[in-house]
Amino acid sequence: MNDYFLSRRALIDEHLKALAGRAVPPRPLAPALQQAFASPGKRVRGVLTIAVAESQKVKPDRVLDAAAAMEMIHASSLILDDLPSMDDATLRRGGPALHRQFGQDIAILTSVGLLSQAYGLLACNHALTRPRRWSAQQVIQRVVDAVGWDGTVGGQAVDLHSDAAKLDFQTLEFIHSRKTGALFVAAAVVGAMLSNMNEAALCRIEVFAKNLGLAFQITDDILDVTSDSATLGKDVGKDEQKLTFVKLAGVDGARRLSGELVETSLAALSSFGAAADPLRALATVVRDRVR
Amino acid sequence: MNDYFLSRRALIDEHLKALAGRAVPPRPLAPALQQAFASPGKRVRGVLTIAVAESQKVKPDRVLDAAAAMEMIHASSLILDDLPSMDDATLRRGGPALHRQFGQDIAILTSVGLLSQAYGLLACNHALTRPRRWSAQQVIQRVVDAVGWDGTVGGQAVDLHSDAAKLDFQTLEFIHSRKTGALFVAAAVVGAMLSNMNEAALCRIEVFAKNLGLAFQITDDILDVTSDSATLGKDVGKDEQKLTFVKLAGVDGARRLSGELVETSLAALSSFGAAADPLRALATVVRDRVR
Repeated sequence: MNDYFLSRRALIDEHLKALAGRAVPPRPLAPALQQAFASPGKRVRGVLTIAVAESQKVKPDRVLDAAAAMEMIHASSLILDDLPSMDDATLRRGGPALHRQFGQDIAILTSVGLLSQAYGLLACNHALTRPRRWSAQQVIQRVVDAVGWDGTVGGQAVDLHSDAAKLDFQTLEFIHSRKTGALFVAAAVVGAMLSNMNEAALCRIEVFAKNLGLAFQITDDILDVTSDSATLGKDVGKDEQKLTFVKLAGVDGARRLSGELVETSLAALSSFGAAADPLRALATVVRDRVR
Repeated sequence: MNDYFLSRRALIDEHLKALAGRAVPPRPLAPALQQAFASPGKRVRGVLTIAVAESQKVKPDRVLDAAAAMEMIHASSLILDDLPSMDDATLRRGGPALHRQFGQDIAILTSVGLLSQAYGLLACNHALTRPRRWSAQQVIQRVVDAVGWDGTVGGQAVDLHSDAAKLDFQTLEFIHSRKTGALFVAAAVVGAMLSNMNEAALCRIEVFAKNLGLAFQITDDILDVTSDSATLGKDVGKDEQKLTFVKLAGVDGARRLSGELVETSLAALSSFGAAADPLRALATVVRDRVR
């Protein structure tokens, strides 16, 4: 990980800590909430929001609420993914999955609280932004679409209810584009909208984020078979019953594919010049995960 | 139920049907989503949003997205309340609880999808509103607060983790004001904000909704012991292990208390004159539930 990524991640971690401090949950929720905010994530979605804004000369602190919101939505979805009725995971981000520590009821309520608060932060961030080419409605709807029926929620439902033996590349791409891709792209687009980016540039940012998100998911699939749970901080081998890019193309093939996707993502930025260096630094981090 | 209430409820039901028709979920989610949208609710929160708007001479169709959003948030919370890790209910709105029909995973994902889409509808409704005294941020934050750590999410956590034997009136009021009251008040305040109500009038609407919400909850507690599940369409007697207003004050005492709260709510509207007739019609429906 490069200095750019680490410094922006530190900003997000600090902001999440401040947000957790400001929340006043009743006693049965408090420890779960603190853990959900503090659990050490990679923060790649939040850094993406910031990096897009910085490519428009907008300072990180101007989109920090939105960056935190994207991470909270991601954390919210991981809590649900780990539930017994879904992936039944034991380990997440180096600690026990939230429901293992606090019970399913508290885990589910924490997840819902995180998601809900995230929409408040997005609206708050938009209200602070000047000038505004994009409305609060456009920013929020973009995230709603990424979370909802045809986003992470829909992708997770298909993932849980598909027969792995019958999956093909097209279905796998459908699942990943929704489970991972949609929120990845939304994180970038929100950063773009809040930094007043025009529509043409925003289209290129979408191409960048879509390809980078898929590359990121493939590196996850690779690490699931080449790494161990102590290193990753989550259960590995969980994908055994699932179709993954590694099963379709082998580890080397998947590595090649993810490398190509990173190249495609970078190509979308060619007209941005040096302004896009923050985005290139982020892409490097994704590429180097499996090198 | 009076004609006013029934006609507004019909508008909401129709709009929810249209929204369900527009959603394009993948196959594993589709039937659960359709059921969640179509399940016959009382729609008292949605009618409250509309009635507040009508008290400002704003037509129902101008706040229909917001009214539907409040009902979707309510439906979303009921799906979670019914889960085995929470109230473990079997029956809801005259049919099996959603997780009984479609599994916990699909039920949870449907709940999250409903909540998320509701925020999109609120932002959309705000964007259509003119003139605008209140920002999209103010509208959304109000709902976020009602849902979140100190709202329905927090109230449900305390309800599930309190020892009923040790509960007192104060704790019961804490739980109800969050589990039911917060969203009730938010439904009214959203209607007020979207119809450009000034701050002083909005304060009175809050008092109206707070008292009516508590009255509504008490009538629920009464019906849990005086009615049956076929009539109510949900499990009854579930409150046996919980402290309720009925346990504290008896059925007659609870009935008296709910009547007094309805009177207090109506008194808050005295300066509104005939404009508040829609709100009075709604209050009558709450009062007459246990007469």
